[in-house]
Amino acid sequence: MKRILILGGGKSATFLIDYLADQAPSKGRQLTLADLDVELAKRKLKGKANTEARALDISDEEARKALIEESDVVISMLPARMHPQVAADCLALGKHFFSASYESKEMRQLEPQIKEKGLFFLNECGLDPGIDHMSAKKVIDEVGAEGAEIISFKSFAGGLLSPECEDNPWRYKFTWNPRNVVLAGQGMSRYIEQSKLKYIPYHQVFKRVQKVEFENLGEFEGYPNRDSLGYRKIYGLENIPTVLRGTLRRTGFAKAWDVLVQLGLTDDSIELHPPQNSTKRDFLNSFLPFDPNRSVEEKLSSYIPDLDFPTFEKIQWLRLFSHDSLPIYQGSPAKILQAILEKEWTLKPDDRDMIVMQHQFEIKENNTIRKLISSLVVKGENSDHTAMAKTVGLPLAIAVDLFLEGKIQLTGLHLPIIPEIYLPILDRLEDFGIHFEEKVLES
Amino acid sequence: MKRILILGGGKSATFLIDYLADQAPSKGRQLTLADLDVELAKRKLKGKANTEARALDISDEEARKALIEESDVVISMLPARMHPQVAADCLALGKHFFSASYESKEMRQLEPQIKEKGLFFLNECGLDPGIDHMSAKKVIDEVGAEGAEIISFKSFAGGLLSPECEDNPWRYKFTWNPRNVVLAGQGMSRYIEQSKLKYIPYHQVFKRVQKVEFENLGEFEGYPNRDSLGYRKIYGLENIPTVLRGTLRRTGFAKAWDVLVQLGLTDDSIELHPPQNSTKRDFLNSFLPFDPNRSVEEKLSSYIPDLDFPTFEKIQWLRLFSHDSLPIYQGSPAKILQAILEKEWTLKPDDRDMIVMQHQFEIKENNTIRKLISSLVVKGENSDHTAMAKTVGLPLAIAVDLFLEGKIQLTGLHLPIIPEIYLPILDRLEDFGIHFEEKVLES
Repeated sequence: MKRILILGGGKSATFLIDYLADQAPSKGRQLTLADLDVELAKRKLKGKANTEARALDISDEEARKALIEESDVVISMLPARMHPQVAADCLALGKHFFSASYESKEMRQLEPQIKEKGLFFLNECGLDPGIDHMSAKKVIDEVGAEGAEIISFKSFAGGLLSPECEDNPWRYKFTWNPRNVVLAGQGMSRYIEQSKLKYIPYHQVFKRVQKVEFENLGEFEGYPNRDSLGYRKIYGLENIPTVLRGTLRRTGFAKAWDVLVQLGLTDDSIELHPPQNSTKRDFLNSFLPFDPNRSVEEKLSSYIPDLDFPTFEKIQWLRLFSHDSLPIYQGSPAKILQAILEKEWTLKPDDRDMIVMQHQFEIKENNTIRKLISSLVVKGENSDHTAMAKTVGLPLAIAVDLFLEGKIQLTGLHLPIIPEIYLPILDRLEDFGIHFEEKVLES
Repeated sequence: MKRILILGGGKSATFLIDYLADQAPSKGRQLTLADLDVELAKRKLKGKANTEARALDISDEEARKALIEESDVVISMLPARMHPQVAADCLALGKHFFSASYESKEMRQLEPQIKEKGLFFLNECGLDPGIDHMSAKKVIDEVGAEGAEIISFKSFAGGLLSPECEDNPWRYKFTWNPRNVVLAGQGMSRYIEQSKLKYIPYHQVFKRVQKVEFENLGEFEGYPNRDSLGYRKIYGLENIPTVLRGTLRRTGFAKAWDVLVQLGLTDDSIELHPPQNSTKRDFLNSFLPFDPNRSVEEKLSSYIPDLDFPTFEKIQWLRLFSHDSLPIYQGSPAKILQAILEKEWTLKPDDRDMIVMQHQFEIKENNTIRKLISSLVVKGENSDHTAMAKTVGLPLAIAVDLFLEGKIQLTGLHLPIIPEIYLPILDRLEDFGIHFEEKVLES
């Protein structure tokens, strides 16, 4: 009997747990879900056969190692910063390791030993990173097999709202870690276009959007992600002239978000202690030039020269002009902003989220260039069973299942960019409606 | 015979060394100048009586401690990050310590022991910090003694060029650490105006300038410095409604510098490796959106909507549109920019620099408000004997002299903000033409 250990039973683990728990009895497996909150773990397992909930404080080394020792494969759904420790334990105790997080430097340092011990460590096997890798690499490998050449690869993804649930002017709510959304784009973004390296500082990135269209869903905009250049190596496209990765939002989002960026509301470098009676309006005003003769609205309009009505409306909708009390009175501007946004951008129980992803390839073959657009749309069921949890959890669950079935027979440290991994996973994801539509435009 | 040890004989130490060396024989003192480059130290001492040059690698703990052990007072002209180590040695060996750098957290942790051992440690006794503190605190203490109230304090300072040496459109050259100039303003700046706290992110700070005038020198502009709020406590003005500290440049500088900021050329967070044959024009282009149909000049003009001719001219004068090779092919954008600027903004041997400083007070007394403007202008002699070196080095040299003469009889950790320190220093600085002109405007 194979024993699977899942560390962390948070929201993003819902589909992963269901998938692995449901097949545990028939496949003769035992599933243990360990979480700081054992009651949460029990609720998630719903008393299914061959499953067990355990309480675990991940910082308790002895308890953590004991649990890992009892298992054959370990799936970490913990925050990414905890992965190196868990991976080191797995290596020491001879256990296989799976995660949906980015492969870290610390992880890469373990590579020779993972291989030497005959273990299989798989990271970046969720949505983004995960499904993006698998679906892109499938096209890239097919094109390569044909002898054609990819001369441009642009790829966009976003976690948004299902259109019928877009009930605010931003057409957005938090469907993932709010802090990451507030800090998105900080640092210098970089990409390459027609062999020209391009760098974009944070305070420009939300101005550098491009239109992206999905059939029947209308228009979105994509702003460049941090480091698009790294994907050249991962995908074996070292000499490709154009690579851009971007984040999708509804059209108009970036322009309004950029107002918050320009003001400094997303800064995470200083600690503020606004007076206890100060309001959201005071908070906004503290980032505007002093002028006793003009209102906050007037000052904002002259500070942001191209502030149009749709943008103004979005800022207003966040109640930043209101005399509401601040939700917290200590923290960086970004933390205070996040607390304000969390009041407005939280999913209602029946809200459905939506994942959109689109790869845009330009493929050169025999002096003709064709465009291949590959698009994914996944809608959530409600605020618990989100498209985000589904697309993050299922690829990982399927990977574990395939591995335990012996259908993935690899050792070492891997990403899901080789056919042996991505083909069967993409195939099974189809059964859950996770399916890319391809469209070819001949030029 | 009292023994003075100066650590570091760089450019900013010139006047300090001369002042202390010249009086060493008559005051029965011995002066040791220790530098990594002993030949430099010898040149600076010019073989004067009672002086000695020593070679010292500051990381050689044994040699460093031996030199400190032989001294009575130690003056550190080393880079600021080395001060905590030197100060710790001084504390351990029972020596007095002087520097022109900001009092660090590490320094403050030593405070109880400094006091206990009866030692005198003085920091921030150069120009800025230094002369700014002394001259401002003199006015503040005088106003306080009158029973009047300061309701606004704005203070600006800059290291610039003497007007007859302004031979480029920026009217600027490096007269101080170029790296600090390139990174100036990064982080969140903060000040308070009429009791409203104000925060300015980096990408706005060069837009938030105000006009500052000096008689016979014309117009300058000041942009807010990092943390103006901290000065409230230092100067005993905890409840003052308005405090702003700013950096002075010639009018138009900030608008052109802001173009470099907006582009991302001052970013210090990523490492670039531009191809070996790439040019300054390529470097600039890599921060502009891709557009194969427009020139770099055209792209810049549309990227920076308010790019006027005086601004364009400044960018052009830096040769950023030129096909010159890059001076370095590795480093952050800020490092590459600095290398480019160092070619254009280096003082010629006969160039004279200029220090400008202005305090603007609003003083309330018996329901009338008067403005007091206190201005300092110091011009350098040439690129070796700069106004910068003079104004940084002389206050510190005078402080050491006064201390050894017993005219400062304090123990503990101090800034030059108490009359016993600042009055005699300001008095002696007058002999060197370092003199504030005061002007009162009754409202």
